[in-house]
Amino acid sequence: MPIDYHTLMNWKIPEVEQVLTKRDTMLYALGTGLGHDPLDEQQLKFVYEKSLVALPTMAIILGYPGAWHRDGDTGIIGSHVVHGEQGFQILRPLPVEGTIIGRSRVTGVFDKGEGRGALIQSATEISMKATGEVLCTLTSTSFARANGGFGGPSGPVKEPHVLPARKPDAVCDLPTLPQAALIYRLSGDYNPLHAEPEYAKRAGFKMPILHGRCTFGVIGHALLKACCDYDPSRLVSMEGRFSAPVFPGETIRTEIWRDGDVISFRGLVADRGAVVFTGGRAELAAS
Amino acid sequence: MPIDYHTLMNWKIPEVEQVLTKRDTMLYALGTGLGHDPLDEQQLKFVYEKSLVALPTMAIILGYPGAWHRDGDTGIIGSHVVHGEQGFQILRPLPVEGTIIGRSRVTGVFDKGEGRGALIQSATEISMKATGEVLCTLTSTSFARANGGFGGPSGPVKEPHVLPARKPDAVCDLPTLPQAALIYRLSGDYNPLHAEPEYAKRAGFKMPILHGRCTFGVIGHALLKACCDYDPSRLVSMEGRFSAPVFPGETIRTEIWRDGDVISFRGLVADRGAVVFTGGRAELAAS
Repeated sequence: MPIDYHTLMNWKIPEVEQVLTKRDTMLYALGTGLGHDPLDEQQLKFVYEKSLVALPTMAIILGYPGAWHRDGDTGIIGSHVVHGEQGFQILRPLPVEGTIIGRSRVTGVFDKGEGRGALIQSATEISMKATGEVLCTLTSTSFARANGGFGGPSGPVKEPHVLPARKPDAVCDLPTLPQAALIYRLSGDYNPLHAEPEYAKRAGFKMPILHGRCTFGVIGHALLKACCDYDPSRLVSMEGRFSAPVFPGETIRTEIWRDGDVISFRGLVADRGAVVFTGGRAELAAS
Repeated sequence: MPIDYHTLMNWKIPEVEQVLTKRDTMLYALGTGLGHDPLDEQQLKFVYEKSLVALPTMAIILGYPGAWHRDGDTGIIGSHVVHGEQGFQILRPLPVEGTIIGRSRVTGVFDKGEGRGALIQSATEISMKATGEVLCTLTSTSFARANGGFGGPSGPVKEPHVLPARKPDAVCDLPTLPQAALIYRLSGDYNPLHAEPEYAKRAGFKMPILHGRCTFGVIGHALLKACCDYDPSRLVSMEGRFSAPVFPGETIRTEIWRDGDVISFRGLVADRGAVVFTGGRAELAAS
């Protein structure tokens, strides 16, 4: 069954109620690689309950509706879906614990053609259950590689942020663990693509790949380190496009351009010359 | 205030009710280093919810009463307590989820002398809440380094298991992560000694040390790999003595002697010639 444009545009993604604990907040940070230098006090505040603060990129796992697109009725071939784009904008400081509501909706469905795939865009609003205060908004694009040619519109799709032509102003290398995907998935994305070798092979990958969201977190860590002196309140928005998978254990290099409070960036796995994240744009609060 | 023998022997350690989830079971295994080779299918069953099984050493985190000895009234100087000995005996296969009851009691208090310290021994019985069935029994000795000379009995203390004089029959090296203690502590032992550099320094260590229980889990992994072909039902008991701290990031070498269904073992950090666990004895179920 191919996907149907109107059915998908009107898909009811279930509202999510999530009880976030300090342990969850620490586990998220450990899953993105924080704490790899356990003597670095700057990193410790994200992984230790004393003076705990949330990483800004934790926004993207709040109120996560799970793989709703893998519901058989959507027509989407779940094993061939990869994460295409991700963004967040933080409106209030993220809590380290509390009950959170996530409300997601489909905002766009695009046909990139037979053999190329389909894009499914969604937006999520995250709020505190007790007060209704909105904490942050998220945008996400899934790339359904086996669903092209269903006859939907091919655009207009927002053009990616253009990176400056000059050499990067800063570069930050951060390692990932061989077991990074296994740790990261405990933050709520249990897609077998990130754990099961046979499943990953069937999906066309040599081995389980790192979650795009984990790569996003590692790059967020690089921005926090290189541009924000590890002050999470400074990184208020971040967005961009996944361009190639990262395999657990690889080192992610973040190239950074600073233009006032706007940061442009991309991610690479330098060892194999792969650009894994591109069109990155982030905004900093005034320091 | 020094410790008082009779008060401590009769200390009421609160009963613990623990809701164990599959996520907890996976996080425990990741915290002891399982999954470091994400393509090893033998390791995957401990860290992935499909066909999930519990590591035998997970027994020692079930029904964990926390640092009850740090209650001011015990007289024990909490910052100077290290884990001295640990053992478990499994009576029924460990569950990967469920509600568990832990009942602990003090079984011995010994005075090793002024400047040397005190030993506090406890035993725990772990059962399923719903059925009352006993899953396993645990034994543990804490070494209170700053509490020697309180005037209690100096023995009799059980002699450690004597390792065979011959060369080991097998050797297994397993790495630990720099962030191993930070991940491991999310399984319930939040002692700052394993996270906070300043606290560790005050306690006399150059940096936060790995939990003794984590070292125990890494050595249990080595036994499972070297002697049990990763079949957790074969490792039914295990005990021994912590003889030196492990620092996160070090590789733990387990030396193993096989005599029928009895395994003798010790743990080392070969890089600095330190014996970190000694007098190890384990029993295997018939294969």
